Amino acid sequence: MKITGTFLDEISHDIPHQNWGREEWDRDFAHMKAVGIDTVILIRSGYRRFITYPSVYLQKTYGCYEPPVDLVKMYLELADKHGMNFYFGLYDSGHYWDSGDMQGEIDANRYVIDEVWQQYGHYKSFKGWYLSMEISRRTKGATDAFRTLGLQCKQVSNGLPTFISPWIDGKKAVMAASGQLTKDDAVSLQEHEKEWSEIFEGIHGAVDAVAFQDGHIDYHQLEEFFAVNKQMADRFGLQCWTNAESFDRDMPIKFFPIKFEKLRLKLEAARRAGYDKAITFEFSHFMSPQSAYLQAGHLYNRYKEYIQSL
Amino acid sequence: MKITGTFLDEISHDIPHQNWGREEWDRDFAHMKAVGIDTVILIRSGYRRFITYPSVYLQKTYGCYEPPVDLVKMYLELADKHGMNFYFGLYDSGHYWDSGDMQGEIDANRYVIDEVWQQYGHYKSFKGWYLSMEISRRTKGATDAFRTLGLQCKQVSNGLPTFISPWIDGKKAVMAASGQLTKDDAVSLQEHEKEWSEIFEGIHGAVDAVAFQDGHIDYHQLEEFFAVNKQMADRFGLQCWTNAESFDRDMPIKFFPIKFEKLRLKLEAARRAGYDKAITFEFSHFMSPQSAYLQAGHLYNRYKEYIQSL
Amino acid sequence: MKITGTFLDEISHDIPHQNWGREEWDRDFAHMKAVGIDTVILIRSGYRRFITYPSVYLQKTYGCYEPPVDLVKMYLELADKHGMNFYFGLYDSGHYWDSGDMQGEIDANRYVIDEVWQQYGHYKSFKGWYLSMEISRRTKGATDAFRTLGLQCKQVSNGLPTFISPWIDGKKAVMAASGQLTKDDAVSLQEHEKEWSEIFEGIHGAVDAVAFQDGHIDYHQLEEFFAVNKQMADRFGLQCWTNAESFDRDMPIKFFPIKFEKLRLKLEAARRAGYDKAITFEFSHFMSPQSAYLQAGHLYNRYKEYIQSL
Repeated sequence: MKITGTFLDEISHDIPHQNWGREEWDRDFAHMKAVGIDTVILIRSGYRRFITYPSVYLQKTYGCYEPPVDLVKMYLELADKHGMNFYFGLYDSGHYWDSGDMQGEIDANRYVIDEVWQQYGHYKSFKGWYLSMEISRRTKGATDAFRTLGLQCKQVSNGLPTFISPWIDGKKAVMAASGQLTKDDAVSLQEHEKEWSEIFEGIHGAVDAVAFQDGHIDYHQLEEFFAVNKQMADRFGLQCWTNAESFDRDMPIKFFPIKFEKLRLKLEAARRAGYDKAITFEFSHFMSPQSAYLQAGHLYNRYKEYIQSL
Repeated sequence: MKITGTFLDEISHDIPHQNWGREEWDRDFAHMKAVGIDTVILIRSGYRRFITYPSVYLQKTYGCYEPPVDLVKMYLELADKHGMNFYFGLYDSGHYWDSGDMQGEIDANRYVIDEVWQQYGHYKSFKGWYLSMEISRRTKGATDAFRTLGLQCKQVSNGLPTFISPWIDGKKAVMAASGQLTKDDAVSLQEHEKEWSEIFEGIHGAVDAVAFQDGHIDYHQLEEFFAVNKQMADRFGLQCWTNAESFDRDMPIKFFPIKFEKLRLKLEAARRAGYDKAITFEFSHFMSPQSAYLQAGHLYNRYKEYIQSL
Repeated sequence: MKITGTFLDEISHDIPHQNWGREEWDRDFAHMKAVGIDTVILIRSGYRRFITYPSVYLQKTYGCYEPPVDLVKMYLELADKHGMNFYFGLYDSGHYWDSGDMQGEIDANRYVIDEVWQQYGHYKSFKGWYLSMEISRRTKGATDAFRTLGLQCKQVSNGLPTFISPWIDGKKAVMAASGQLTKDDAVSLQEHEKEWSEIFEGIHGAVDAVAFQDGHIDYHQLEEFFAVNKQMADRFGLQCWTNAESFDRDMPIKFFPIKFEKLRLKLEAARRAGYDKAITFEFSHFMSPQSAYLQAGHLYNRYKEYIQSL
């Protein structure tokens, strides 16, 4: 199963910034293309006070800082140039991480969606929306928020596709900044299926694809969770993608590039489950030949050998 | 606001060593000069049993290890060569970190100051002293210690300038080795002003400049804290510098180079507050083109573009 | 004291993978040779479900994943090519880390030893066994396990040597993934001697060398602990090696290359104690010129200067 999409981790929650300029990004898009990536997804257009484009609304309403560069414009121009599809990730106010309540995200993005489509909707590469709230089963109001925002995205953009990338509440679902790697109260397969069936039922029609993050469960659980995800997606008419994390959740350093063998296990499991598409979080730190993490360049080589052998 | 000084992080508390030899340091001083840095500050001449120069006193009294290289000599020679100013950072016995009591620092450095001035005072680039104890408002006896040590430094060296670089007890003031990024009991602006006014009153005349570390408060608090710092400094006749941290305190990896946008926000805030000078902790790990952290080289490029645009 | 052996950290517990292929490993063996390393030690042939060679037994019995590459074969071929000695590290089921009980390790490795010797025993470079369980004084049944497994290794292989590399229960003996760097209840020298004398008495004849990890005690304790270790080893007819850790345990990032001065302190202490051999954990991440950690290349240079000056 080939990876055909990657997040662009600007603004980042927890991965240190590489401080790339336009030249480095241009080169990275070429590296992506060379291994078959045709889709880039802005992970979020802003997080709390940091934003990726000079939004008048967000600066005025949320006290956001004026960004030194218009990253949305730059990414769209580069996506146009390299013939790639760009998905726009919504604004993350940070409130729901603290409160577990999504109303703030609906309020903020109601304006962001309009503003962004007006400013950037004409780019050829603007091909979809990413509802950027990273939720799991216990996030209050997630279904309503995804439904509301997904429908609005589609409405303003003549039905461009939308997707979400939630996490499975598995044993590795711990805070990035914590001193832990695992927790005890992981979700069971049955709970997972019950709770996500309800969410899928609520969002279908507003959300076109679900790309579960694949790193929160153990490798030997991939098979059963992936099978259930695919069944649920089929049942409610959603596309089933995998978000193949290319960083390693098993190490004390949070986070460095994953061991190739682990990435392969996850991609193979997605293939066997009949998944529709694989994207990754994310290429530029963890798989790129020009990443500051030199392990990433070696992962790129191992991955290239792998897809050539398929 | 341009950065014109940097710490040299030998001996380090919490940043892994790069294992550079003289050749790498020589080259790094040239990289510093190329972006306008004219001042290098030895962060501390020793920490517990590790020391930067073969001090007979510290080896005998504190059981310090004989260093493989005389770093003080090397830095002074390179500062002479590159036409830079060198500030000598005092010895840190480690005791006050555990006990909160500064008497041990006074006792140790009484001898260190004399020894160092005798051995190295003749270097042309020896231009000042850094009182290396990193305190905040709750450190017992800090005012007395800074007064005593600052006066002694000045006395032996015909009045060479002295400075300190304390931290604001803000929400990011957590231990480097902890699993946390923030804490709840941050200092208020009013407490900060009250407590530091007392300290400034006690140290003026013995300390010439105060360079608060700029990384412990949130970015939207920079404006108000910087304004208060400048007012206090003016009131007590101290120079007001900023210690612009070039590493990122918001990430689980402690610590990697900062996102350029954040550094820019902090430098702009210092400029608006009318600060006298900006130094950084520190160039060689976090901003150098030859840093082991490749993000640092990109930060160097972004910073160079920025100062060229001023 | 020169380092003449290194672990090969595949499969790793806690050091992120470099994703090297055969080409990088071949080059790394050459880098090792260039500084006098003649022995490579596979740290473990498997850990939980990840394994280094396609063991039918481990896949069937422990649900291990089929590895993408036969690393044991590759390492043996490269060791043959470069004229180095290869030690095979036993399988680590992971159970004793949780339970403190070694019976599972005995059961699993009973088969692994036979399987491995049949498949790989004919390689010229196959020169010994590493009993890979990392124990300290409180691991239940360690003596019996080492005795049983050591004797079996020797029996199948016509008496090839065996060794272990335990840790001293010092103040830095904390979990890698924890937010701590030190603990309070460190072992005393007397307890260490008492408990390890019993273990040494139990294992002599089955284990030929003991290479204590040198990083869990403070630098000023090296002298006394090393002296005791050497005395115990002599008393029970074991060789006394040091496992000179080339990563830094004193930093919040777990783990990056060690400061050369610290490595030197530890090697000098081993030399003064009359140790028989120094190995390191490990060359490829922490001392190699091609490591993803660029500090490692500088450590290589500093180390090379050091051994040339001996």
